[in-house]
Amino acid sequence: MLRERFAGGSGPDPAFDALNRSLPVDRRLVTEDLAGSRAHVRMLAACGVIAPEERDALLAGLDQVEAIAREKGIPDDPKVEDVHLWVERTLAEVAGAVAGKLHTARSRNDQVALDLRLALRKFVGEARAGIRELLQALAGQARGNLALVLPLYTHLQRAQPVLLGHHLLAHAEALRRDAARMKDLLRHADVCPLGAGAGAGTTYPTRPELTSQDLVFSEPLRNSIDAVSDRDFVLEFAAAATLLCVHLSRLGEEIVLWTAPEFGFARLPDAWSSGSSIMPQKRNPDAAELCRASAGRTLGRFVALATAVKGLPLSYNKDLQESTAVLLETGDTLRQVLPAMAGMIAGITWDSARMRAAVEDPRSFVLATDLADHLVRRGVAFRVAHGQVANLVTWAEGARKGLGDLSLDEIRKHCPQAGEDAKSALSVEGALAARASRGGTAPARVAQALAALEAELAAGGP
Amino acid sequence: MLRERFAGGSGPDPAFDALNRSLPVDRRLVTEDLAGSRAHVRMLAACGVIAPEERDALLAGLDQVEAIAREKGIPDDPKVEDVHLWVERTLAEVAGAVAGKLHTARSRNDQVALDLRLALRKFVGEARAGIRELLQALAGQARGNLALVLPLYTHLQRAQPVLLGHHLLAHAEALRRDAARMKDLLRHADVCPLGAGAGAGTTYPTRPELTSQDLVFSEPLRNSIDAVSDRDFVLEFAAAATLLCVHLSRLGEEIVLWTAPEFGFARLPDAWSSGSSIMPQKRNPDAAELCRASAGRTLGRFVALATAVKGLPLSYNKDLQESTAVLLETGDTLRQVLPAMAGMIAGITWDSARMRAAVEDPRSFVLATDLADHLVRRGVAFRVAHGQVANLVTWAEGARKGLGDLSLDEIRKHCPQAGEDAKSALSVEGALAARASRGGTAPARVAQALAALEAELAAGGP
Amino acid sequence: MLRERFAGGSGPDPAFDALNRSLPVDRRLVTEDLAGSRAHVRMLAACGVIAPEERDALLAGLDQVEAIAREKGIPDDPKVEDVHLWVERTLAEVAGAVAGKLHTARSRNDQVALDLRLALRKFVGEARAGIRELLQALAGQARGNLALVLPLYTHLQRAQPVLLGHHLLAHAEALRRDAARMKDLLRHADVCPLGAGAGAGTTYPTRPELTSQDLVFSEPLRNSIDAVSDRDFVLEFAAAATLLCVHLSRLGEEIVLWTAPEFGFARLPDAWSSGSSIMPQKRNPDAAELCRASAGRTLGRFVALATAVKGLPLSYNKDLQESTAVLLETGDTLRQVLPAMAGMIAGITWDSARMRAAVEDPRSFVLATDLADHLVRRGVAFRVAHGQVANLVTWAEGARKGLGDLSLDEIRKHCPQAGEDAKSALSVEGALAARASRGGTAPARVAQALAALEAELAAGGP
Amino acid sequence: MLRERFAGGSGPDPAFDALNRSLPVDRRLVTEDLAGSRAHVRMLAACGVIAPEERDALLAGLDQVEAIAREKGIPDDPKVEDVHLWVERTLAEVAGAVAGKLHTARSRNDQVALDLRLALRKFVGEARAGIRELLQALAGQARGNLALVLPLYTHLQRAQPVLLGHHLLAHAEALRRDAARMKDLLRHADVCPLGAGAGAGTTYPTRPELTSQDLVFSEPLRNSIDAVSDRDFVLEFAAAATLLCVHLSRLGEEIVLWTAPEFGFARLPDAWSSGSSIMPQKRNPDAAELCRASAGRTLGRFVALATAVKGLPLSYNKDLQESTAVLLETGDTLRQVLPAMAGMIAGITWDSARMRAAVEDPRSFVLATDLADHLVRRGVAFRVAHGQVANLVTWAEGARKGLGDLSLDEIRKHCPQAGEDAKSALSVEGALAARASRGGTAPARVAQALAALEAELAAGGP
Repeated sequence: MLRERFAGGSGPDPAFDALNRSLPVDRRLVTEDLAGSRAHVRMLAACGVIAPEERDALLAGLDQVEAIAREKGIPDDPKVEDVHLWVERTLAEVAGAVAGKLHTARSRNDQVALDLRLALRKFVGEARAGIRELLQALAGQARGNLALVLPLYTHLQRAQPVLLGHHLLAHAEALRRDAARMKDLLRHADVCPLGAGAGAGTTYPTRPELTSQDLVFSEPLRNSIDAVSDRDFVLEFAAAATLLCVHLSRLGEEIVLWTAPEFGFARLPDAWSSGSSIMPQKRNPDAAELCRASAGRTLGRFVALATAVKGLPLSYNKDLQESTAVLLETGDTLRQVLPAMAGMIAGITWDSARMRAAVEDPRSFVLATDLADHLVRRGVAFRVAHGQVANLVTWAEGARKGLGDLSLDEIRKHCPQAGEDAKSALSVEGALAARASRGGTAPARVAQALAALEAELAAGGP
Repeated sequence: MLRERFAGGSGPDPAFDALNRSLPVDRRLVTEDLAGSRAHVRMLAACGVIAPEERDALLAGLDQVEAIAREKGIPDDPKVEDVHLWVERTLAEVAGAVAGKLHTARSRNDQVALDLRLALRKFVGEARAGIRELLQALAGQARGNLALVLPLYTHLQRAQPVLLGHHLLAHAEALRRDAARMKDLLRHADVCPLGAGAGAGTTYPTRPELTSQDLVFSEPLRNSIDAVSDRDFVLEFAAAATLLCVHLSRLGEEIVLWTAPEFGFARLPDAWSSGSSIMPQKRNPDAAELCRASAGRTLGRFVALATAVKGLPLSYNKDLQESTAVLLETGDTLRQVLPAMAGMIAGITWDSARMRAAVEDPRSFVLATDLADHLVRRGVAFRVAHGQVANLVTWAEGARKGLGDLSLDEIRKHCPQAGEDAKSALSVEGALAARASRGGTAPARVAQALAALEAELAAGGP
Repeated sequence: MLRERFAGGSGPDPAFDALNRSLPVDRRLVTEDLAGSRAHVRMLAACGVIAPEERDALLAGLDQVEAIAREKGIPDDPKVEDVHLWVERTLAEVAGAVAGKLHTARSRNDQVALDLRLALRKFVGEARAGIRELLQALAGQARGNLALVLPLYTHLQRAQPVLLGHHLLAHAEALRRDAARMKDLLRHADVCPLGAGAGAGTTYPTRPELTSQDLVFSEPLRNSIDAVSDRDFVLEFAAAATLLCVHLSRLGEEIVLWTAPEFGFARLPDAWSSGSSIMPQKRNPDAAELCRASAGRTLGRFVALATAVKGLPLSYNKDLQESTAVLLETGDTLRQVLPAMAGMIAGITWDSARMRAAVEDPRSFVLATDLADHLVRRGVAFRVAHGQVANLVTWAEGARKGLGDLSLDEIRKHCPQAGEDAKSALSVEGALAARASRGGTAPARVAQALAALEAELAAGGP
Repeated sequence: MLRERFAGGSGPDPAFDALNRSLPVDRRLVTEDLAGSRAHVRMLAACGVIAPEERDALLAGLDQVEAIAREKGIPDDPKVEDVHLWVERTLAEVAGAVAGKLHTARSRNDQVALDLRLALRKFVGEARAGIRELLQALAGQARGNLALVLPLYTHLQRAQPVLLGHHLLAHAEALRRDAARMKDLLRHADVCPLGAGAGAGTTYPTRPELTSQDLVFSEPLRNSIDAVSDRDFVLEFAAAATLLCVHLSRLGEEIVLWTAPEFGFARLPDAWSSGSSIMPQKRNPDAAELCRASAGRTLGRFVALATAVKGLPLSYNKDLQESTAVLLETGDTLRQVLPAMAGMIAGITWDSARMRAAVEDPRSFVLATDLADHLVRRGVAFRVAHGQVANLVTWAEGARKGLGDLSLDEIRKHCPQAGEDAKSALSVEGALAARASRGGTAPARVAQALAALEAELAAGGP
């Protein structure tokens, strides 16, 4: 219909169609589109814009359209520009002339803005569930491996001993922030755009309050121009997804490292390992790598839409169509990576001996800070203690000894204030227990933090 | 000091220094660094880690360091790696050996995480003030030009008449969301990282709760590894700044359009116009263009940091240093563009005649929707009415007539159900008034929305 | 087959499959994959690794596989990981046990690197043809509208008069650079990766020189590790596509502006215009807007891949799989936007009167520079002349006069050295003709430049 | 001067200035600006636009300006908008009224386009030199460590043995492409924009050919509008720098991995290692991490400019000012990372025993492919052989044996066609030597490739 307006019915140029038609992408929004249309129809009737029997006929027709979509799917009909026109056209086929009333007091501009917000709500709900599932997996691993210890790395150099649970809970903190962001962005988008029409509002005595309530939004649109111009909610979702995937990329990188033979800290289950087409021995962490790559994918989508929207005057411009693909592709990515990461974490097994060996490797001196702290407790200024221990380490490296191999005399040669108990202070368990202030890796602290996360998850999660 | 650890005192390679030294950038964080050090010193004393007189000596020394920074600035001394070491070194000069105690129970890792969070707080505060200033300017223009009308554009084609105030308030809605995002991201970052040490916590009997309270955070760190690994807050700030600048880019584009001679809707004051080096007549909207370009700048910063952080294993890695530049550069950009846009908007003047002429231009048919709606009210299904009016418009274009030029007979030739009052329904003021449902451009609605914004601003703003 | 290696045949976790399987995307590479396999088979036989009759059986089988793919398509079989395994499995069905020899001396790692390079070659060829088509359209419009004049805009303010042909040829210059980039990037990628195996080379007495020649590459791989690790060619294509789409976005923006009623310089043909779902009068430049948005899309793809590859150790990592989607999506975008822009440009019509009126609009003073130049020719230093004319313009604006409306006396009040012929110097045609040095808008120069472009296109184009 | 045109001399709003003034950034272009001005002055005189004595006075003045810039630097004078006006103003101070003639037949629009191109040329020259230096370091390490062997990794899992030299030369291939891109982009930018004026050309009888030759460009501008609108060359430089830094990020990641204690393949010299503020034992690869992060930085700059330029109508718009910062910041980044990477590579030392141990680690089965290939040579189809060896490996893993530990009988239990020489075929040196086709890791091939690179570098490098 709209397509035939120009060119004496000859319709758009095929190259125009190839670029312009969004049906192949937006047909996935049919559920949202139908939900919006139902609410719109009910509101029109409640406001007296259409008659009750027209309402009933339209609602029955929309049910039929939904059944057709569900059963036959929506074909990529080259004569149909988008999902909205497919619904309208199919409705006309099943419901007859009354279908022409569906678009009363509504424009594609407010309609698509609504569909995207409804789809966003679904994707955010899924993302939050996926985050919770992953948090559950992290909590489960922490609970099941309370005593495991591994080195904390800074600059991928061994720094100090930490509990595996403490390390896993660090990832949980990042994910809790992701959940908070998802929640907040939905709140920022919790506005029903129906009623904006093409951008100036509608001339019918409609009540946007009704559609807003019907569709469970907190409030109806505040400004019609903004309602059709705004794609912040897609951008904010893409940005939040990017941060989330950056977090997954860090965890993915660690899985790759931990399962590399040089580390050997962990092993992925068979169901999460890949073979090679040529090397019979390979056991590859493909899923962890793809989670790592997902940060690029989501970031790219954010850039695509931010760049497309940049510099557009109000109100609706066709450039905004890019937001549909960005929303769907971002949602799809999260749908793939969150369960994958949860599955990997849930199934991963640990080689506690390899981890412990890394901590106790005498060449790594992961207790050097503890020795410096010991000196401080005996009155040495930290900066001085740091220097003395640094010299001691340099000397020990030359002598090919670890800290534990040194005699008290050797220690005192560089650290004259070292106490009789200096050596006994240099134990892994002592080092862990000593880090007992808030946020530290002391077993009691980690147990506390884990219990708090478990309680939060039991209460529905972040 | 740290620099001399290696190479037998010969120090780092000059090319290493050129890449690694962050003093030229992070010396701007000296205020935050000193604030954090003071709180740390007070906490150390409260916990008995240092003596009261050491505390007093350190605090007095830090005051002296601040005075030096304020009066002489911080020179880009090639022997000093970063601002933290500059403070420590300067403190040693003014306070003597006690300076060596400052770094007790603290690492550069938690220290820099704190400094960045404090700087973020400042930048967000400024951004929110800048947004409010701009909202004030928009509200002022809306208040001062209540009766002005211009075309709403979709696809930069004239669509329907709207009030200028309605259009300006659309931008205000976007900015209100920006303010909400700024507020929320600060909440997500409202955690004091001090106490994380290098990443595992500290072995001293410290109380992170005290530094957290002292520095007015909501809570101390929850996990030491996360505390030193996390740069979400810079990323989230850069993302929020990008959305904000995308909004400014849209307003900037409109200023460029409105002040172009073809539109002629507005004129920038002299204090916001630029000349040309060669064309004596030019009056260029440079500031609007630079606001438009700022979306690229902030987006680029977000990409820079997201890409740098992607794939990093926990905990601290030097790559995170990129966050300092991203935070400062993003904050600086907002400092420039928000006042500029507020200044332009406050000073812009309107050519109401040009706007009105654009609305009434008979070739633009901005009341065509109203005629279709008129037909609907007389029982025609919307889709049918839309088709009839489309045909009428096509005919009128051929006849070089506007809708207002048509006789009722001419209208009825394409729209047989048109009523006697069809022509009187085709008035700009009628079209405006009819869009009276929530969010619409009817004068009463716009007055209501403006009053609400003014009240919000009077109450402190979003 | 590979999928069953782990988990005692129970196969990968469904969530792993959902993330990992690339068949839905890479089945589009089947033609390239088959071409590579044929060349590989011929090489294996030529080197004696397989027997001639095995070669023949494999080639015949590959023909059958191609026929199956062409006739039935490649179903998204959840048991098949990617297109390479689909080919291998289908080959086994049609050719029997000999199919097991296809993968001799080859790995998926060098195979996918080859397929992507072959697909790149196709996409670049198409892009270059699309650029030439668009250049043809621009040249055609310039040729058909040699005498049309419009304002040159800087800052979207009118600056000086130029020929429409000169303006269109500016876009042609940008596109010529795009063509050069496309050509060069193909040259950088003109290396056949077959022979790299998994990354170390192969143990068979193969001759990569033969496959390289067979597949028309300039040279075989130089380093096997690089051959499987390198995705520069996709990144470079995405970057070149971004620049190309940035150019299209600028032209798209101008089409949007020119067809806006305020400018009214141009009209899109019906076959390139869209209607509105609600506003019967609308005539929207959707295709121009989508071309504008394509810069975001291509930029986003570049960012996605650059971020995914960043920080990967050599050699192959699964993250590189992102390159397939980036290549295909980028190629698809160019396939859509180049013909669309060519179609729009070929069909656009000009309103020479509106353009001329914009040039002659007395308020725009587009000849002010010419007056300054007149003064310079009479001995005034340019900076002085610029200042005098600026003052004259300010005065004329106040007096609501254009330059052409001023008497010589009025001119001389601000520009005392103005000659008797000052006024006659102020003609549009004079201004055009005067800009006669290389690259200028003088009609003779533009004719020359147009002829050069036409000759280049006739010779095959850039 | 230009700044005082508006507002009755009261000048721009301070907030406008804060946004608009580019002097703090573009004063770094003073050398380029002066070079361009000198060529322009000589051309003006050669064309008779200025007199010989004016030329001489201007050239002498420009020398004085340069001396002032060199000796005193260019202060960030708030009254001066940019470097071009600083030069003009300073010239007026030293040369008097003749300075007013400098801007004849030139606009800031073509002037800044020239300055950027000259700066680009310098940066590209530096980048190419930096790439060559890094290639030299890689070649030096390969030459000095010809016999070292380490595992090739795919998915960070050990795959097959390779020579260290082969691995280093893989990075060299990537860098050779970077050099080619740098060379080509300079060719694409090899056009002198002087003569474009504000965008339409100039009315003076100038000869752009002369300035083009004087400044050693291949040709003068082809189209004046394009000459002032085009920033492709900055974008292309940023894109090429991004690819280069992505390569450095991969090498940086490997340095981080290799120097991690778990790998222990390499050790950075003291002059390229960093300590920790708190952990006395640390030896951090900060420079490698910063090289890794540089990919984000350069990518962000590309995004910033591409987004800023997107959707701009021709010709010059102020948004293009972003290109100055992008060019300088990108150039600066390359100036830092290329020498740093060259320094690290030149100084790194290898632990051949750790590498060899990783290759020979029986758990890693890096010769499994060779066993499969052995079976193929005995008539087994590759896919069958692959399956047999995979089963053998699974069995051996269970039995905690490496391939070398297996008896021929054990091998034949899974691989019945294994020959008597099966075991002797399973040697690292044999595996290396067997990969002898083009691009493979066989010692003879690597020696050949290294010699070729050395010859290329001796001849001036890529």
